[in-house]
Amino acid sequence: MKTDITIAQEAKLKPIGEIAAGLNLSKEDWEPYGHTKAKLSDKLLGKLKDQPDGKIILVTSINPTPAGEGKSTVTVGLGQALNKIGKKAVIALREPSLGPVMGIKGGAAGGGYSQVLPMEDINLHFTGDLHAITSANNALSAIIDNHIHRGNELNIDPRKVEWKRVMDMNDRSLRQIVVGLGGPLKGVPREDGFNISVASEIMAILCLSTGLEDLKARIANIVIGYTYDDIPVTAKELEIEGALTLLLKDAVKPNLVQTVENTPAIIHGGPFANIAHGCNSIIATKTAAKLGDYVVTEAGFGADLGAEKFLNIKSRAGDFEPDAVVIVATVRALKMHGGVAKDNLKEENVKALKKGMENLKKHTETIENFGLPFVIAINKFPTDTTAETDFVESWCESRGIEVALTDVWAKGGEGGILLAEKIIDKAESTERDFKRLYELEETLESKIRKIAQTVYGADDIEFSSKAKKQITFYEQQGWGKLPVCMAKTQYSLSDNPALLGRPKGFTIMIRELRPSIGAGFIVVLTGDVMTMPGLPKKPAALKMDVTNDGKIVGLF
Amino acid sequence: MKTDITIAQEAKLKPIGEIAAGLNLSKEDWEPYGHTKAKLSDKLLGKLKDQPDGKIILVTSINPTPAGEGKSTVTVGLGQALNKIGKKAVIALREPSLGPVMGIKGGAAGGGYSQVLPMEDINLHFTGDLHAITSANNALSAIIDNHIHRGNELNIDPRKVEWKRVMDMNDRSLRQIVVGLGGPLKGVPREDGFNISVASEIMAILCLSTGLEDLKARIANIVIGYTYDDIPVTAKELEIEGALTLLLKDAVKPNLVQTVENTPAIIHGGPFANIAHGCNSIIATKTAAKLGDYVVTEAGFGADLGAEKFLNIKSRAGDFEPDAVVIVATVRALKMHGGVAKDNLKEENVKALKKGMENLKKHTETIENFGLPFVIAINKFPTDTTAETDFVESWCESRGIEVALTDVWAKGGEGGILLAEKIIDKAESTERDFKRLYELEETLESKIRKIAQTVYGADDIEFSSKAKKQITFYEQQGWGKLPVCMAKTQYSLSDNPALLGRPKGFTIMIRELRPSIGAGFIVVLTGDVMTMPGLPKKPAALKMDVTNDGKIVGLF
Repeated sequence: MKTDITIAQEAKLKPIGEIAAGLNLSKEDWEPYGHTKAKLSDKLLGKLKDQPDGKIILVTSINPTPAGEGKSTVTVGLGQALNKIGKKAVIALREPSLGPVMGIKGGAAGGGYSQVLPMEDINLHFTGDLHAITSANNALSAIIDNHIHRGNELNIDPRKVEWKRVMDMNDRSLRQIVVGLGGPLKGVPREDGFNISVASEIMAILCLSTGLEDLKARIANIVIGYTYDDIPVTAKELEIEGALTLLLKDAVKPNLVQTVENTPAIIHGGPFANIAHGCNSIIATKTAAKLGDYVVTEAGFGADLGAEKFLNIKSRAGDFEPDAVVIVATVRALKMHGGVAKDNLKEENVKALKKGMENLKKHTETIENFGLPFVIAINKFPTDTTAETDFVESWCESRGIEVALTDVWAKGGEGGILLAEKIIDKAESTERDFKRLYELEETLESKIRKIAQTVYGADDIEFSSKAKKQITFYEQQGWGKLPVCMAKTQYSLSDNPALLGRPKGFTIMIRELRPSIGAGFIVVLTGDVMTMPGLPKKPAALKMDVTNDGKIVGLF
Repeated sequence: MKTDITIAQEAKLKPIGEIAAGLNLSKEDWEPYGHTKAKLSDKLLGKLKDQPDGKIILVTSINPTPAGEGKSTVTVGLGQALNKIGKKAVIALREPSLGPVMGIKGGAAGGGYSQVLPMEDINLHFTGDLHAITSANNALSAIIDNHIHRGNELNIDPRKVEWKRVMDMNDRSLRQIVVGLGGPLKGVPREDGFNISVASEIMAILCLSTGLEDLKARIANIVIGYTYDDIPVTAKELEIEGALTLLLKDAVKPNLVQTVENTPAIIHGGPFANIAHGCNSIIATKTAAKLGDYVVTEAGFGADLGAEKFLNIKSRAGDFEPDAVVIVATVRALKMHGGVAKDNLKEENVKALKKGMENLKKHTETIENFGLPFVIAINKFPTDTTAETDFVESWCESRGIEVALTDVWAKGGEGGILLAEKIIDKAESTERDFKRLYELEETLESKIRKIAQTVYGADDIEFSSKAKKQITFYEQQGWGKLPVCMAKTQYSLSDNPALLGRPKGFTIMIRELRPSIGAGFIVVLTGDVMTMPGLPKKPAALKMDVTNDGKIVGLF
């Protein structure tokens, strides 16, 4: 079986100008970054505003397992399949973070014959957006510490700086640090920590803003911490919103690439769904909707995380609604949810599969609850047996649920035609009755409770004493009307990563809140979730190489 | 008077393909990054290897002062002037670091009508090279800490990790930190610190390597620290040289841009000259020499820093020699060296000027000592009086030194024609007798002493007890045959930034050494020099902005 990088290197890419021309873009609408990447103009969305919008297909999944679900692969494959049957589809994805690429994943641009290309660039620095976000985040940190060091006119309490530094890396040693040691030439000592860049509020702001003006206004609103008298201090008071916006002037432009089958893909913004809001940018999704009859876009991890945030945060900020949803699962992953160990996944096990279906069931209920039509996509693996796939199909049939076996990894768009046909039916149908889970006017506690009970299936929620005080304080600040962005392990519906399948009778522990006033939401940290990942014993990076003649190996 | 950013925005840029075509480059030799930037292929230098080399003109200066010398401006202006008089000139510069751009400078791409463009991109993220270097540096840090955290098979002593993290930012609070706090989930506690990215050994490696293969070999040789038994540990033992090279696969390609007058400029690599080796990449300089009859390239800060390292480190690693040198000074800066306060620089003061000439005198002796012909370029300011410029000219004349008044800020290439004519004479002449200051076979102490006494004019050098032990240890490791890369304040010939002009009777304090075995030199820290700058009270960033219609302000 060919590896992803081999398939990618063998693919025949068109010059990006041809892809742009296929979308009826003119020369001033895009700029080349190499021969196969482009940045779309920040004026483009405004120029297209009177064009009709295409249908928006949201791709989500069951809770991920180490077995792999292939949500990005199905997203790309579905886009290719729609094109194959004569629809004009544009794919809208997130940009991969270097952290997991170097850490575990080794690559995050789809797989097999359903990849976005050039995958080696997309997986590494791409067009530099994540670096620009990192720079803007850390410029704000430097300005904060410099302000404190040089007289602290704003009376910032160094013990209450909420703004963390970031790095696009998995680096557990930076989770909790002390900076400013070594005497007066080296700043003011205080506790600090690094988050991974994709958890930066700057990332969320970039993804939720509707243009340059909105971007700057949101940056100005960032609350960096508090004074000694507990008054919030903003980026605007530090007079730095202009420079941070300037640092993001190119990052705010969506990136255009293509798939293995030359289907256009807009890749822009990349917040993780476990610790951030998990969706690509509003600008990218809206641009894709103007350029295609169908937008296929994904939200990170399971429907309990990315899709919930897509529907409650992103689509609200962007004032749009999705038309249909794809829920991705694999037989392998469902068996893991049913209790099978990773090493035994190759063996047929319908009993475990049946048990694991409960995880999928919960996510279908979540999407139904939002009033959205959906199709289940079973992303086929060579080890799936007929008994297993038959079981899934009859399980769905008996519940009146549409399901499509897809084989887009091995066959590209061809392997996703059934899914494409079924999702078109759903998107064109009138069974849609979209309603969000909560209203902004509700209290923070009510919003958190609804998500925990309705989406996660928890019995109850419990607040730490810190979280309780924060809720009261945030409501006093007038921040109670913001949506909440839950930070929770992706591996379980609960806040305990070990509880697979469909856990019951659990309580979600609310550990801590963080204000993301610029992004326009309150981050709610549950369980032990960390905002800076660590590296495994053998990081994926150890296998990566570039040969002396420039051939890349170890990205997969 | 128009600002730099206004002049830049009014300039008529040619499509970068036209600039490339003017250099006889074909389509496969370059890739576009936007319409006015390109990356040159990493195969180009090999392809051009049989072409004759153009003359290499090195631009250096007196010790910088807050009055400004305009070395980059003169470099760009001279390149434009050479083109104006019918020579084919290519400019080779360093890439600016975001740290000083956001901190003090506000921009570092030349000035007035002698700028490289697009200055707003060059000054910000450009083509992402510095970000890639930052990522590679910090990936190595994460791998080191992960290795220690996960069993520490290599027996690395956490107290002896020499490899620092880096950030492309002026951020004094990161100079001295403690990482790994918070218990077993958050790594192993140890002291650490961030350098600015341009001080990273990865930057030096990129700039000194001759291609991808050499780059990887050098990365493998990086010594990250020592075991508990004081055995050096390398990046190769951590199996990470492949991934770091992969992260640098695009950064190693030189960047092509143009000046206000459409003269081609290759901008690549950007180590500071006070804390690193201060020269653009060997690949860029050699490529420029293959493409032009003349390469005009600069080395950072005064001739005591950048030029010394250009001549002793870069030209040795790259196996080439410069043909002539330009030493840049301004009447304003010379008056500051003569004791005038910054606020009084507008007043005529020939007496102070005469005293300040001693600084320039020292640098001419340094270049003479290397056996290289030179011309002094006086970069004109509107406040210079005729009495002052007459004095400088007669001072030079009486010593048989060639001098050219240049007005390239206000007039572009036209203002540098006299300089161009004089430097051509020097470059074509036979008075060249290039000899480096020291042989590699000499001891580290001998190399340091020669630089301190011959180039800085010190009476003596003094080693801290730490430095003494390091010298002994490094010689034992077989590192004694490497060149030394001095880290010293740029403001003075001495290691005390307050001593302007030509200080005498001083001793250079050798504080500490650091091994840069991958780069191939030993860093020698003198006085109080810091490898992470801080921000001023009012950082340049506070004035930066981008308007809602995309207009950039505050870069100058």
